Amino acid sequence: MNPNSWLMLCRSVRFGETDAAGVMHFQQLLRWCHEAYEESLERFGLTAAEIFPTPGCTPEVALPIVHCSADFRRPLICGSPLAIGLKPTRLDPGCFEVRYSFSSDDQLVAEGLTLHVAIRADGRQRCELPQGINRWLEASALQGGIQPL
Amino acid sequence: MNPNSWLMLCRSVRFGETDAAGVMHFQQLLRWCHEAYEESLERFGLTAAEIFPTPGCTPEVALPIVHCSADFRRPLICGSPLAIGLKPTRLDPGCFEVRYSFSSDDQLVAEGLTLHVAIRADGRQRCELPQGINRWLEASALQGGIQPL
Amino acid sequence: MNPNSWLMLCRSVRFGETDAAGVMHFQQLLRWCHEAYEESLERFGLTAAEIFPTPGCTPEVALPIVHCSADFRRPLICGSPLAIGLKPTRLDPGCFEVRYSFSSDDQLVAEGLTLHVAIRADGRQRCELPQGINRWLEASALQGGIQPL
Amino acid sequence: MNPNSWLMLCRSVRFGETDAAGVMHFQQLLRWCHEAYEESLERFGLTAAEIFPTPGCTPEVALPIVHCSADFRRPLICGSPLAIGLKPTRLDPGCFEVRYSFSSDDQLVAEGLTLHVAIRADGRQRCELPQGINRWLEASALQGGIQPL
Repeated sequence: MNPNSWLMLCRSVRFGETDAAGVMHFQQLLRWCHEAYEESLERFGLTAAEIFPTPGCTPEVALPIVHCSADFRRPLICGSPLAIGLKPTRLDPGCFEVRYSFSSDDQLVAEGLTLHVAIRADGRQRCELPQGINRWLEASALQGGIQPL
Repeated sequence: MNPNSWLMLCRSVRFGETDAAGVMHFQQLLRWCHEAYEESLERFGLTAAEIFPTPGCTPEVALPIVHCSADFRRPLICGSPLAIGLKPTRLDPGCFEVRYSFSSDDQLVAEGLTLHVAIRADGRQRCELPQGINRWLEASALQGGIQPL
Repeated sequence: MNPNSWLMLCRSVRFGETDAAGVMHFQQLLRWCHEAYEESLERFGLTAAEIFPTPGCTPEVALPIVHCSADFRRPLICGSPLAIGLKPTRLDPGCFEVRYSFSSDDQLVAEGLTLHVAIRADGRQRCELPQGINRWLEASALQGGIQPL
Repeated sequence: MNPNSWLMLCRSVRFGETDAAGVMHFQQLLRWCHEAYEESLERFGLTAAEIFPTPGCTPEVALPIVHCSADFRRPLICGSPLAIGLKPTRLDPGCFEVRYSFSSDDQLVAEGLTLHVAIRADGRQRCELPQGINRWLEASALQGGIQPL
C-alpha cells in the first residue's frame, strides 16, 4: 500500500470556513485535523464502527482527545488547496499523538497536534490501545509519516 | 412565569460565524435555532437529560428533526445583537414544529423552522411526544409565542 | 466532460458531525450542501476567487443565500458514505436554486435546497448572475442534474 | 466595574456540540474560547466594529491567532453548565495571550489558550496592539483574571 494513501490527504478551504477577515477562521484547523485522522484510518482499512461509537455498537475502548494544539503560519483563503501530512506516534501502550502538517502550494501554512488516550467505554479507566489503532500506528511509524515539502 | 423568559432569547453574532463576505454565514442560523430551542426548554424548567441523550441515560423518546428551513432578509455582521422569538406548535400527538423569528435593532432579519417527530429510541417507530415537551408546547400556545416587533 | 465530475460528489459522515443521539446532527447537512456547491463550481472549472470574496479581490456580484431547507429521511452514522447529486436551476436572470440529493448505499437519506440571488457587492441592489455561474447553470441544465438512484 | 462582568462568563453545553460518544466534541472548546474573548471585549465596553472587520469598516490592526491549545480533563455532557474564567496577558507591545479556564459544578473541566499578534490590515506586517485592546489587557491584569475555584 502506498503510504501516501493514508498519511497524505487533500482538501480545499471552503467559504464557510473563512471569517470576515477574509481568511480561514482558526478553529476550523482542529476540525480538519480530526477529519484527516478519520480519513487516514478509513484509507488504512479500519471501518469507522471499529473505532467510533455508532448506535447499537460501542467499541470497548474510546480514544478521547486530552490535548490539542495548532500553529498558524500563513493565512489561508477560500479555495486554497491543502496537502495534509500525518505523523501518528504511539507514546505509551495507552496513548498516541498525531501531528498534522498543512501545506498549500508547497509552503507550510499550519501545524496541528492531537493527543489521544485509551479508556474503557464502560467506566472511563485507562487501558491499552485497540489492536486496529496499534496496526495503524506501527505501519505509519515504518513510513515515517509527514513527507518533507 | 414571564413568557419572555422562555420564548424570547438573546445572542450576538460572533466573528467565527461570519464569512469572507463580511456577514453571517447562512448555516449558522440553523445552529442558533436549535440552541434557542434547547435554551427555551431549559428556561421552562426541563433538564437537558430529560429530552436529550446523555451517557448512561437515553430518554425513551427521541425527537429528531425531519425538516428545517430558513429565510434570510438582511445581512448580519459581527456584533449584531439578536432577539430570537420562538413559536412552538404541536401539529399532531407525535409531531411539533418551532418557528423562530430573528430581529436585530427592531428589524426582522431572518426566520427559521424546525419540524420534530417523536420516535422510540429503541427501534425508531413513531410514538407520542413526551410529557415534558407537551407541557412546554401547551404553555407556549397560551402565550402565543413570537411577540410582534 | 463527464457530468458526474461536477454534479455527483462524495463524502463520508465524520465523527464530529454526529451528536449524542449517535447520528448526524441536522445542521451539518446545510454545510455539506454549500461545500458541494463550491466543489461543483471548482470541478466545472470556476476558481473560488471568481465567485467568492478573497482578501483584496471582491467579485462585483455576490450570491447570498436567501432561503434554504432540508429534509431528513434516514439517520446517518459516523462513516456512512454519501453520494451527493446536485441539480442547479436558474429561476430568473438574477436568481438560481440548487437542489441536493443525498444517498447512502443507494438509498435516499436526505435532501437539501439553497436559493441564491445576485446582488452588487457595492450597494447590495439586485443584479444579473455573473457569467461563470450562468455557464455552470446552462451546462448543468443540459445534463439534467441529480441522477436517479 | 465588577471584573466578573468581563472575566467570568457562562454558557451551557448544547446538543449539537456533543458527538456520538455522548460528550462534548473537543473542537467546540476552541470556539467557546473565541466567543468568550469576544464577549469579554463587549462587556468591557469595546464594540465588535472596533476590533473585528465588518463590511465597509476594517480596523487598521488585525489580531490573528498564531497559536492555540486546549487540555481536556473531564467529559462534558449536553446541558452541563460552564463557568469560563479568562486571563488575558500582554506578552510584548504587539502580542497577547488569553488563558481560559472552564469549570462545571466547581470542578476544572478544561483549559484553553489563544495567542494573538497585531498586524497591519493592509500588508500584514507586525505592529503595536490597538489602544482598546491595551486598555482591556491593563484592566484585566489589575483584576488578576481567572478566579480560583
